[in-house]
Amino acid sequence: MPRTAKTPQIPAIGPLDRSAGALGRQLAQKLRDAVKGGGLQPGESLPSTRALAESLGIARGTVVQVYEQLMAEGFLVSCPGVGTQVAPSLAGVPRKGAARGMPLPPLPPAAEAFARVASQFTPLPPVPFAVSVPVGMAAPGLAWRRLGNRIRAHGAGAPGGYGDPQGALPLREAIADYVRRSRSVHCGAEQVIVATGTQQGLFLACMVLLGQDDCAWVENPAYLGITALLDALAPGRMVRVPVDEEGIDVAAGLRLCPGARAAFVTPSHQYPLGMPMGMARRNALLDWARARSAWIVEDDYDSELRYTGHPFPSLQGLDPGRVVYLGTFSKILFPSLRLGYAVVPPALVQAFRGARALMDRHPPSADQHVLAAFIAEGHLDRHIRRIRGVYAQSRAQLLQILQEALPGGLAWLQPSDQGMHCVLWLAPRIDDRAVALQAVRAGVAVRPLSPMYAPGSGRPGLVLGLGAFPAEQVAEAARRLAAVIAAAAA
Amino acid sequence: MPRTAKTPQIPAIGPLDRSAGALGRQLAQKLRDAVKGGGLQPGESLPSTRALAESLGIARGTVVQVYEQLMAEGFLVSCPGVGTQVAPSLAGVPRKGAARGMPLPPLPPAAEAFARVASQFTPLPPVPFAVSVPVGMAAPGLAWRRLGNRIRAHGAGAPGGYGDPQGALPLREAIADYVRRSRSVHCGAEQVIVATGTQQGLFLACMVLLGQDDCAWVENPAYLGITALLDALAPGRMVRVPVDEEGIDVAAGLRLCPGARAAFVTPSHQYPLGMPMGMARRNALLDWARARSAWIVEDDYDSELRYTGHPFPSLQGLDPGRVVYLGTFSKILFPSLRLGYAVVPPALVQAFRGARALMDRHPPSADQHVLAAFIAEGHLDRHIRRIRGVYAQSRAQLLQILQEALPGGLAWLQPSDQGMHCVLWLAPRIDDRAVALQAVRAGVAVRPLSPMYAPGSGRPGLVLGLGAFPAEQVAEAARRLAAVIAAAAA
Repeated sequence: MPRTAKTPQIPAIGPLDRSAGALGRQLAQKLRDAVKGGGLQPGESLPSTRALAESLGIARGTVVQVYEQLMAEGFLVSCPGVGTQVAPSLAGVPRKGAARGMPLPPLPPAAEAFARVASQFTPLPPVPFAVSVPVGMAAPGLAWRRLGNRIRAHGAGAPGGYGDPQGALPLREAIADYVRRSRSVHCGAEQVIVATGTQQGLFLACMVLLGQDDCAWVENPAYLGITALLDALAPGRMVRVPVDEEGIDVAAGLRLCPGARAAFVTPSHQYPLGMPMGMARRNALLDWARARSAWIVEDDYDSELRYTGHPFPSLQGLDPGRVVYLGTFSKILFPSLRLGYAVVPPALVQAFRGARALMDRHPPSADQHVLAAFIAEGHLDRHIRRIRGVYAQSRAQLLQILQEALPGGLAWLQPSDQGMHCVLWLAPRIDDRAVALQAVRAGVAVRPLSPMYAPGSGRPGLVLGLGAFPAEQVAEAARRLAAVIAAAAA
Repeated sequence: MPRTAKTPQIPAIGPLDRSAGALGRQLAQKLRDAVKGGGLQPGESLPSTRALAESLGIARGTVVQVYEQLMAEGFLVSCPGVGTQVAPSLAGVPRKGAARGMPLPPLPPAAEAFARVASQFTPLPPVPFAVSVPVGMAAPGLAWRRLGNRIRAHGAGAPGGYGDPQGALPLREAIADYVRRSRSVHCGAEQVIVATGTQQGLFLACMVLLGQDDCAWVENPAYLGITALLDALAPGRMVRVPVDEEGIDVAAGLRLCPGARAAFVTPSHQYPLGMPMGMARRNALLDWARARSAWIVEDDYDSELRYTGHPFPSLQGLDPGRVVYLGTFSKILFPSLRLGYAVVPPALVQAFRGARALMDRHPPSADQHVLAAFIAEGHLDRHIRRIRGVYAQSRAQLLQILQEALPGGLAWLQPSDQGMHCVLWLAPRIDDRAVALQAVRAGVAVRPLSPMYAPGSGRPGLVLGLGAFPAEQVAEAARRLAAVIAAAAA
């Protein structure tokens, strides 16, 4: 780091007390304390005597004397060409303890819940079968980068002031148009809340929709991002509703908790199992919501990737006043972008807008404008068509490799014809958490399935992301995974 | 938009019911309904007969017949060179109502609070005296953009998968080093939580530190971002503690609510009034927190900009185990970047990490790596030195212009020697909200001061951002503001 990067002041020492006099002695003691306390580190450069004197409002001669005194004491050294430094020889000298030995305040239950989930969101390494890793043909191409460089250089993407809490209007317009034509979502740009992804959409929905006594239906199994969130924000008020081959079992939900205020569902592609919610179930869910005055939160996380047949339109399109629709660009573009959206009923726009503003003001501006142009210029549709082919091929290849490599009777694939992941069921005696841990040690990234079930109801399995990893890498990962599973069953 | 941007399917029509037969008649009716319901818009292009037939799994001839039928009915038209479209003449035909006339669910009190604050976070236009507008010399220069283009093209800033909920390690290391040397904050990179700005740090602190019966001290006046947050998340549990020329009046806090669980303070530069918290007050605040087992949240939002004298070190450095320290790059770089940080005691790291993960997974990756390099290569320190000069000059100029332009006895400036804004007090009879509204209409951006006070305790005033707007523009804005104030007092 160049020397000019240092600031010409030492905040660690604080102001001098002019009424107490002896400014030189005060300054010397403060510098000694700063070195002892770690505010000044061994080897660190000090400001020039002129700069320090100026910032303290004292005579330069006083600072010169103090520096000389501390050099004599061994706190400072003078290096030709570098200036005055804290003596590097002080490294390793014990520092004054920072903690004062007083007990820390107790943490509320939510904080304990947050601390428990912290480790679950540690990202997997970018190897098969981590989900949504933008490698090879699955990565956005040169168009994304060139558009980014252009839009950051001039106009809308250049460094700017505070923006709209709902998100930049050009992006909201592009999203409204995109979800209307691709997902039959009924909305205008004024109903779109740009979010940092599905997770923020879920968080906002919990904050806005659920009062402090309200219960919510959540599918069983479900995405950890919603179950962990409700565990923390609405402890004891999450009702897990089983899913079958038609999706969420509405009749079971009615038996368990008819008066829930909201249902969190994945109608296009149940997470993690993969089946779409049938039309009769969709109608039953909406009938319940209308009769009992409940909201529906539709997580439509990767509906763009359906490999056969005709996609169901969104649930939102069937009752736009009652459904909060969540989508994300993490899956079809890349997760590190952190852009997604909530489409909310008109009656909820102001509450979502305010909650978003209080949570983090607004999304970063530049990437919003880059993405708006990427969509408007047709790049997103082209990208989706390309990755649809990439993922279909990756899926077919993975199924074949796994069927060859997997120990018979120990693991089998859940049928599904869409999405960016698949589920591999394991024999009931296998501990899927242990398999996932061992797999990561063997260089294979998988998520265990049983934690996605309500406690006690889980079945062991693994969630495997599809992707554009090279075929040999996938084959090698599948062989290693098969070996880990066989060892776990032994 | 190029034609290739259209997807070759029409989700609005949903799947056909094969068991019911008459696939052509079904398809025709679904297309009519989609047009009537708005799922297909006038002028919108339809997929080719081949693509639609394929996606529905029916004979192409059936689709050709249906298209011809609907053209005859006036729903569709065929345009040479474009293909089949929904008839543009249908625009304006009333659509089927989307709402079903059922009552919507009631919203919880928090949602009402969110809706109330939504309008307060509408950004001001980028004119004097909006705060933190990166224009002219206050904007990061070419170095920022070049670094960004390079880092996005290769390596760490390129499109990637999911990242660390705490933020990218290189940025956390750069921040830890920066706050240690510039603000005497004691921490390691493992204590840094990269946030999207001070607002997210405040939100996280509220979520993690406050249980459902806990009260919190907040300065009076204070930043709207903390008071609105506590109004929504902890209604009735915010204790407004007055400030005087030494900062927060700890004795008053002890009288009002000695058992509060946390205090939210701005020790370096009280927001909005500008004075630093004196050393005796700092010690009193820490003594209270230790004795009553409370946390302190230190918002150090623009401490980099002090024009005279020596800055106080951070409060965090005096008791690193008890203080959550919040900083932001919104002020010294630019707000649309949305990057800031919380430095939290080791005992709180896991809870903050988990809360951050549940809120929005992690910050966008690319800009984190750009900023890490910007700091590590010394650009940030150079930028701060430059804008310190820019803002000092802007401040001196503004004071002079205002003193010349302002009606005597109607408005006067609050003395302050740091920061990126100043406070202009108004005579007690002037309505500062009305002045702010009129000012915006006159092309001048100011925020009213009285809403930053607890209800009933406010004094009228305006918050004026300093900046690098051209001198003539500032002078013109000051003259217009003076006229608005004079008119409001008349």
